[in-house]
Amino acid sequence: MREDVQVFDVVVIGAGPGGYVAAIRAAQLGLSVCCIDDWMKEGKAAPGGTCTNVGCIPSKALLATAALFEEIELKAGEHGIEVDCPAIDVAKMMARKDKIIRQTNDGILYLFKKNKITFLNGRGSFATADADGYLINVDAPAETKVMAKSVILATGSKPRALPNVPFDEDRILSNSGALALKKVPTTLGIIGAGVIGLEIGSIWKKFGADVKVLEAMPDLLTFADSSVTKEAKKIFEKQGLSMEFGVRIDHIEDNGERVSVSYTDKDGKKCEMWVERLLISIGRVPFTASLDAPVVGLKLDERGFVEVDKECRTNLPNVWAIGDLVRGPMLAHKAEEEGVAVAERIAGRKAFVHLERVPSVIYTEPEIAWVGKTEDELKKAGREYKVGQFPFMANGRARAVGETQGFVKMLADAQTDEILGVHIIGPQAGELIGQACEALAFGATAEDLSLICEPHPSFSEALKEAALAVNKEAINF
Amino acid sequence: MREDVQVFDVVVIGAGPGGYVAAIRAAQLGLSVCCIDDWMKEGKAAPGGTCTNVGCIPSKALLATAALFEEIELKAGEHGIEVDCPAIDVAKMMARKDKIIRQTNDGILYLFKKNKITFLNGRGSFATADADGYLINVDAPAETKVMAKSVILATGSKPRALPNVPFDEDRILSNSGALALKKVPTTLGIIGAGVIGLEIGSIWKKFGADVKVLEAMPDLLTFADSSVTKEAKKIFEKQGLSMEFGVRIDHIEDNGERVSVSYTDKDGKKCEMWVERLLISIGRVPFTASLDAPVVGLKLDERGFVEVDKECRTNLPNVWAIGDLVRGPMLAHKAEEEGVAVAERIAGRKAFVHLERVPSVIYTEPEIAWVGKTEDELKKAGREYKVGQFPFMANGRARAVGETQGFVKMLADAQTDEILGVHIIGPQAGELIGQACEALAFGATAEDLSLICEPHPSFSEALKEAALAVNKEAINF
Repeated sequence: MREDVQVFDVVVIGAGPGGYVAAIRAAQLGLSVCCIDDWMKEGKAAPGGTCTNVGCIPSKALLATAALFEEIELKAGEHGIEVDCPAIDVAKMMARKDKIIRQTNDGILYLFKKNKITFLNGRGSFATADADGYLINVDAPAETKVMAKSVILATGSKPRALPNVPFDEDRILSNSGALALKKVPTTLGIIGAGVIGLEIGSIWKKFGADVKVLEAMPDLLTFADSSVTKEAKKIFEKQGLSMEFGVRIDHIEDNGERVSVSYTDKDGKKCEMWVERLLISIGRVPFTASLDAPVVGLKLDERGFVEVDKECRTNLPNVWAIGDLVRGPMLAHKAEEEGVAVAERIAGRKAFVHLERVPSVIYTEPEIAWVGKTEDELKKAGREYKVGQFPFMANGRARAVGETQGFVKMLADAQTDEILGVHIIGPQAGELIGQACEALAFGATAEDLSLICEPHPSFSEALKEAALAVNKEAINF
Repeated sequence: MREDVQVFDVVVIGAGPGGYVAAIRAAQLGLSVCCIDDWMKEGKAAPGGTCTNVGCIPSKALLATAALFEEIELKAGEHGIEVDCPAIDVAKMMARKDKIIRQTNDGILYLFKKNKITFLNGRGSFATADADGYLINVDAPAETKVMAKSVILATGSKPRALPNVPFDEDRILSNSGALALKKVPTTLGIIGAGVIGLEIGSIWKKFGADVKVLEAMPDLLTFADSSVTKEAKKIFEKQGLSMEFGVRIDHIEDNGERVSVSYTDKDGKKCEMWVERLLISIGRVPFTASLDAPVVGLKLDERGFVEVDKECRTNLPNVWAIGDLVRGPMLAHKAEEEGVAVAERIAGRKAFVHLERVPSVIYTEPEIAWVGKTEDELKKAGREYKVGQFPFMANGRARAVGETQGFVKMLADAQTDEILGVHIIGPQAGELIGQACEALAFGATAEDLSLICEPHPSFSEALKEAALAVNKEAINF
């Protein structure tokens, strides 16, 4: 049998941001690589995973449309731009989004070709393991098998469903369905005020949907810095987003026209919410079902994650797992870093991913982004720290463009001045955080950052001023 | 006489970005400070200098309006947003801009108060010098005099005029007039394709003005990296901006209705251009006329700049000069850095401004920004270097928002891998450059930058990919 099976140095299962990047890096390092992914769209392979197909990319495409729509509706007037009320052609907006997704899918296919990576469009699973490596089944095209000296598992995650409430993607939606609606819902219920719930809620809200968010936790974004959470709550409520915290979902029923959500509110009162569409965004679970993991004895933890060490090694020799499959934040860029690091380790190089320096971004308006420790974490750890905060209201560029909500908050060690965390809510937070990531990577002090000449006028100056504020030396506030 | 004169540790003449920041920093360090500035608007003090009143801030305010106007006109359709052709109410746009300027003026006045700085709204000039310090005349309010142990000169610059062509700010415009037009000009001629000409041209072009730029130099932005220049030229021409290079202006005449510009083109042909308004943006000259510099023997160089050493010391003891008055780029943030550094030196601290790490930004669309050396400079210096370039077309966020023009180009030392220059043309270039400034400040290598985990999707990833490209390891291109 072995004769007709192609042998690769590395087989990557999954072509999401972790998998395809791992494949490219492995190929760059001279390894022979096969990447297997079963995502298809309109009869064509659609690599890129959740991120490209139903996550980061489509949500940002729709957010761009929603942001422009809202600017026309709410801001054009104060600029002196005379324009009628806009209307949204949802089909056209979705076509634009689909085109951007297709560009990205095709871009990845092109990169596979360029890097001489064998790409197979089908479901990859373990068949057998022996001393030579792992035999991997691919269910299409036409029941192929490939042999791998090393395997990188990168099959990602899928949305968590509520018990007995399957996603029909018509009225009961996961991120996939919520990013592909055919019309603006009159009412959109959202269970779960996490990143996905807030981003998708903010898209449909801008187009006029009445959005109501129910969250089990006692507050918004409990993993973010509490100053940011507080500011975000204030801003979102001012924007008219209805949010209820500390609720317990009791029962969900779809009557064929509307969805009713029975829940108990934080005071124990029984409540009911009727909505046209319901997004359930209560987290994601690692997706290992397709791997036939038991065949080779791959070890999962009690929550279903593939068990790995700090360097993404599984319990099986030469089998690695990265991204949403393993511990750490479920973020595309975290998966990418792990993909690159694992490829380098397979090639015999040293590499390390610092999970504590992986930034988080929420693409609401204003954006929210952070990296490093929150103030609560520092308190809990008993670490002495200093805080510097600078509001965008005092930033020249923010005033010029009329985006003055929010602030930059910087946390630094009380003795050494080393920057421990940066938390931003405001314009371009998702871009500004890059400078903070760089600062953490260099072990920079607040003073280091305060000495950098930033261009004027720029939002970046708010970062410099927050650094100055750490030592009570802010200039413009 | 001396009894009725208040004595200050520091008197700052000029409250532009250099002066007001120097005053605040000096006050923070415990010095008694007086700041003198004669800018007035509608009978009220208007500190902030050219930057706040007729430069950075108003241009960015109008650019924000122009950008939104153009998005509605050209981009809404492809997003599926149905909206009629917009019209611009220039008076309302200008009122918004003026309000932002006023906020900034008032913000500075508030900062003076907060920092216990004495602010005098009048023209400051040298009266006498003696062993105790410098006596400074202030022509208003009511002919005041103050005594300064140290003086910081920060009177900035003014637009250079063509010989015999005074600015009337109606048809013959400097930046001031061009940022305060009462209607969109049918035709706008611009002499000088520098930063100011390009930014202001791009504002009025978006509102439908027919803009024609004449430039004496053989190319656009000759001080920028030539790859960026080439890309910018291509993009601006595609946007319909008419530019002619290598011209010589022969004669300018205002017939009371239109302005005619007679010029010789690069092939020696005599040409004529008729325009409704003409912006002359051929550079700026240091503004020292109001200082009565000869009274105390302040030394100027042959171009009219105040002569200073590397640390902004003039030829007079305890007299310093910063910003546009002295050598180096005429940029608000450069003036700020010098202001802070001089204040610290007066207070007995050490400080240094690295002029070679001062970034430049041009707020056109797309934005252009750079820091460090250009490729031509490295060639001339005979330095061996590597180049990494990454196009925004291959960046996920750029595709999602539909801003895919341009690239990030990184130059690094061939042996040490140290980053020597970063040149960006593309979305949010003016914000991304901050990360490059930080990299230069830390003496980072391209590899250092390529190891930083940037959020996905973000424009910042293009910076990381350019760093990877330096060593031929870009993932997504």
